Amino acid sequence: MSTKQENNPRVMHGGTTQIEGKPYKKDMNYSYVFGAFPTFELIEARPDEVLGVYVHSSFTDVEKLQSLCKQHNIPVWFQDKIIQKLRDKENVFVIGVVRKFEDTLLSERSHIVLVQPSNMGNLGTILRTAIGFGIKDIAIIGDKAVDYFNPKTLRSSMGAAFRIRHASFPDFETYQKQYPNHEVYTFMLTGKKQLTVTDCPKPKLFSLVFGNEATGLPPEYEAYGTSIIIPQTPEVDSLNLTIAVGIGTFLFTRNGEEV
Amino acid sequence: MSTKQENNPRVMHGGTTQIEGKPYKKDMNYSYVFGAFPTFELIEARPDEVLGVYVHSSFTDVEKLQSLCKQHNIPVWFQDKIIQKLRDKENVFVIGVVRKFEDTLLSERSHIVLVQPSNMGNLGTILRTAIGFGIKDIAIIGDKAVDYFNPKTLRSSMGAAFRIRHASFPDFETYQKQYPNHEVYTFMLTGKKQLTVTDCPKPKLFSLVFGNEATGLPPEYEAYGTSIIIPQTPEVDSLNLTIAVGIGTFLFTRNGEEV
Repeated sequence: MSTKQENNPRVMHGGTTQIEGKPYKKDMNYSYVFGAFPTFELIEARPDEVLGVYVHSSFTDVEKLQSLCKQHNIPVWFQDKIIQKLRDKENVFVIGVVRKFEDTLLSERSHIVLVQPSNMGNLGTILRTAIGFGIKDIAIIGDKAVDYFNPKTLRSSMGAAFRIRHASFPDFETYQKQYPNHEVYTFMLTGKKQLTVTDCPKPKLFSLVFGNEATGLPPEYEAYGTSIIIPQTPEVDSLNLTIAVGIGTFLFTRNGEEV
Repeated sequence: MSTKQENNPRVMHGGTTQIEGKPYKKDMNYSYVFGAFPTFELIEARPDEVLGVYVHSSFTDVEKLQSLCKQHNIPVWFQDKIIQKLRDKENVFVIGVVRKFEDTLLSERSHIVLVQPSNMGNLGTILRTAIGFGIKDIAIIGDKAVDYFNPKTLRSSMGAAFRIRHASFPDFETYQKQYPNHEVYTFMLTGKKQLTVTDCPKPKLFSLVFGNEATGLPPEYEAYGTSIIIPQTPEVDSLNLTIAVGIGTFLFTRNGEEV
């Protein structure tokens, strides 16, 4: 079932000239998903964005993968050399090729808003956490934000990157104009409201906003909504970004359900 | 103020024969702390365990560091070559050398218990999170647990590794015999009690127990105390370990304060 790239209409349609196992770069219009599990997740969540799947001859679960790909008209390429060239770990035997996509966030659902996130592993973990608590729409603010489609982000998201709707905005004002009905909560060390278990706000439609790992949110974010601080001891300079997102998201989502 | 290693009484006292800038290995009885900030944290938290500090000639804040070291009788070594050899990032100009230590956990304080944690970055993040919520005693269970003193763990803990009391135990029974008065809560996907914002237990003295990143807690942990699950959507297989620890620790510690 080996298919030459030239014969793959998806590739031409996607604007990619050819996929020849080039190492990933940010300016490519497709990316790679390392591993069978996240590739299955990709195909199930976004079948139309899958340009093809590389499979190594050592992969043991070929039939299931081929059947799923056939169902969605996705080419399967048996290319040991390309996999060996692309993979960063010895135990990768499947590589999905995904066309980069961007979504429109749903205005009737709550969002997580990340301002200039800079760490790929963190972004992936945040995507996984968000979906674990039922948040499926993520806004990313700023032109220096980390690459959503870098294979490291995709890997650490464990497939959540494909189930999440994500959209980029140059600045927060642009985001807020588009979603004016969301109650905005900005997480910052200078936050005016302490987030506690017994006194967490219970908005129906909200945006939880988190800043960059090293610098947090700039001061002007205090004015965009209710500024929130997660109480912490003076013995740490700040919580890890993913932890702050995890706690904030858990409290706001679980709280709403219990109203 | 360059000091030859042979003249450092701490080194001899610590049982180390010589520190010659050997690359870190798990079986060494000392480790390295990369960077000025965590080295300051180390000296402030555990001055007696600091064998010495390597300083690069490019480091700009030498006086403050020298003064602090002098106060604690810690040798300072100006060794550009050793720093260049040891560091994993170009911007490391200070490397603290710390003798490995282990503590006795305080029986009157609540604990976090990690069973076979396997990722160094996760362990460091957990230490930082724990101290951020006032938990200063960490038990580590199992002989396959990750190395507490690996420089990667120390780095991601941002110095928290030196403020935390930590102790290792071969198995949970040994830990529990030593701390029989702690109420035990085991976090597992098969947990019987859902952790919610409005119905979180409020024990005064507790142990929060978390399993390995990949495998979670073995089934027998259900019997060691109250098994807890953090409610999550079926769209993720599990939460990231650090996120689970963050949410669990936040709820149990903030809850207690408000009783």
